Amino acid sequence: MSLLTIGSVAFDAIETPFGKTDKIIGGAATYIAFSASYFINPIRLVAVVGDDFPISKLEKMQHAGIDLEGLQIKEGEKSFFWQGKYHKNLNARDTLITELNVLGNFDPIIPDNYQNSKYVMLGNLSPKVQLTTLERLQQKPNLIALDTMNFWMDNALEDLLKVIEKIDVLIINDEEARQLSGDYHLKKAAQRILNMGPKHLVIKKGEHGALLFGKNHQVYSCPALLLDEVLDPTGAGDTFAGGFMGYLAQTEDVSFENMKKALVVGSSMASFCVEKFGIERLLELSSTEINKRMQAFVNLGQISMPKKFD
Amino acid sequence: MSLLTIGSVAFDAIETPFGKTDKIIGGAATYIAFSASYFINPIRLVAVVGDDFPISKLEKMQHAGIDLEGLQIKEGEKSFFWQGKYHKNLNARDTLITELNVLGNFDPIIPDNYQNSKYVMLGNLSPKVQLTTLERLQQKPNLIALDTMNFWMDNALEDLLKVIEKIDVLIINDEEARQLSGDYHLKKAAQRILNMGPKHLVIKKGEHGALLFGKNHQVYSCPALLLDEVLDPTGAGDTFAGGFMGYLAQTEDVSFENMKKALVVGSSMASFCVEKFGIERLLELSSTEINKRMQAFVNLGQISMPKKFD
Repeated sequence: MSLLTIGSVAFDAIETPFGKTDKIIGGAATYIAFSASYFINPIRLVAVVGDDFPISKLEKMQHAGIDLEGLQIKEGEKSFFWQGKYHKNLNARDTLITELNVLGNFDPIIPDNYQNSKYVMLGNLSPKVQLTTLERLQQKPNLIALDTMNFWMDNALEDLLKVIEKIDVLIINDEEARQLSGDYHLKKAAQRILNMGPKHLVIKKGEHGALLFGKNHQVYSCPALLLDEVLDPTGAGDTFAGGFMGYLAQTEDVSFENMKKALVVGSSMASFCVEKFGIERLLELSSTEINKRMQAFVNLGQISMPKKFD
Repeated sequence: MSLLTIGSVAFDAIETPFGKTDKIIGGAATYIAFSASYFINPIRLVAVVGDDFPISKLEKMQHAGIDLEGLQIKEGEKSFFWQGKYHKNLNARDTLITELNVLGNFDPIIPDNYQNSKYVMLGNLSPKVQLTTLERLQQKPNLIALDTMNFWMDNALEDLLKVIEKIDVLIINDEEARQLSGDYHLKKAAQRILNMGPKHLVIKKGEHGALLFGKNHQVYSCPALLLDEVLDPTGAGDTFAGGFMGYLAQTEDVSFENMKKALVVGSSMASFCVEKFGIERLLELSSTEINKRMQAFVNLGQISMPKKFD
């Protein structure tokens, strides 16, 4: 099966209480693609970088099975750059620098070879660009998922609602779900968001796990693993989305039951991502490690019914 | 099997965004006893009230199977009183009034009939009183659980550590676990607390569920149900403890696997408690409702292993 993703491919400079990086490669689509590449090949990437982006990193992508035909390289321009610093407990961060550069007027051109993509992951990006991408797909995909953030709810809500109407799975965090729905209560928030169009909603709760909601009032609560070490949360959400969609594309099953499993896969991949800075950990995973991690998630929530009350 | 509990039996006046009560009956031991009474009878109560405590409520307790031989009624004195107001999202509260009254010099006298109690739930109370209770038990119980709060960590840490050393299960919330251990990281916090004595640790995370830790690195994550309505969180933690210990006393099985089920039972009972003000909801539950609620918790976290990665 074929997975297409759009999103930023960029430079990040990250500071957490556990260390600091120079410019390293990052961006939503980078994390999505590397994460998904463990489950499905090739990943079709639609993105834009400047000519400052290192060839060596592009080769790493290709080596991981990421198709770069849809990656535009703009001569004489610079790649998107974000610099941020995390708070003490990693649960909040301050953006220090955002340089849009090539992302400012990104026109998502979809190669003909990508046109038959069955699974589409719209990474966090301007809703206008996400919408344009969907409009340019000539065949209806099996499943479209979208990630977004509060910035777009504040600054481009109308476009965001337009694209949300057209997708199958929305992936956001709990704060964003509350903002988008206007309801603090997550169950009601989920219901309102499902009424906006998507058939499924994933609410990521960071250290508290993730929830999956279906149109028919189905809910699954995926626990969070208690990791020994969290060094850098950057890209965890994108890595989650990549694992989630990679697994769905691999198994070609979009039932609620299989989406629950995809949530475990996404959570597993995200739990690896935060163990090192940037994409580092996503470059070195073994199948044994991945299976062991998924099993740990399954075990963590394993329960059988208590003795019935009578 | 026999369950003994000590703790406050008191008056509360509660204000939440959804309503306000006059003086209603509350107190840790009240919630514990009513909750546990669904699973085991009689519950042996060690507590103290003033002569202002209404007979009608004592009769309700007896009716629920709560043994009041250990309840001291102090003539001419007043019962403990707490008044509090919850914040908008119910995740914090301000104490407006605390009148210790009879609780100020509570001497926990244990009736001879209570001496063979196999299960002991030390409700939130001064660690000195909790310690005295244990010293006065002539037979070693099968299992002792203890609930406490940050107030005692701030004001009576030495005594608290002494009693924690002697118990089997500590039940606290995430903030308290962080304070007690001095470690923000919950996994490390749990390990440190288990090194203080208890064989098991329950960390309650409110709307994010609860965690159970065992000495041999076992962990279970119990999800939180997304309730339609939460009116009043008062007593939820005590109700959890009551269901948890009531179930263990009923099943007489203190294995990690059975404690996981007890976590589901405790969470189910707590989820009922918050649906109405005070103990109201705990007076009216049917076995059908309880079984349905436990099943909902089990279903919420139900997952099977994703397709193995190869």
